[in-house]
Amino acid sequence: MYVILVYDIEQKRVGKMLKLCRQYLNWIQNSVFEGDITDAKLKELLYKANNIMDTGYDSIIVFKSRNEKWLDKQVIGKEKNSIDNFM
Amino acid sequence: MYVILVYDIEQKRVGKMLKLCRQYLNWIQNSVFEGDITDAKLKELLYKANNIMDTGYDSIIVFKSRNEKWLDKQVIGKEKNSIDNFM
Repeated sequence: MYVILVYDIEQKRVGKMLKLCRQYLNWIQNSVFEGDITDAKLKELLYKANNIMDTGYDSIIVFKSRNEKWLDKQVIGKEKNSIDNFM
Repeated sequence: MYVILVYDIEQKRVGKMLKLCRQYLNWIQNSVFEGDITDAKLKELLYKANNIMDTGYDSIIVFKSRNEKWLDKQVIGKEKNSIDNFM
């Protein structure tokens, strides 16, 4: 499964969340990650994320697609990772 | 066409960019927008965005899908717009 994960996390918790998400997905913009992940691994990630978050303030949105070919990606401006050519 | 737009824009330019993106898409998280948009309207949006951005510092990533049914969305934590039920 291909996913895009975006988060909005308060400053004091964002370092932990960044570290967590990078263990599972590719970091492509300040608060945006993408990658192939199994359903089980995604559940594990979200379980751990939930322990870091304050759900009254923070949020995570996950977009899931069974096939990454269903999505086109266009980047304008500065690219975080110059090589993202698996897309 | 259904798109997800995420931006990473420096503080001094972010207000203008937010205002612009909201004219074309639904604001669903701090720097995340989604919605149905025609190819022509998206080009117009990105042309205007390019005029606001400093492409050495700022970035926009657009994920495009011909059909929004190809994407599942899951929100954890605080929802910006409580009603996003067109998804």
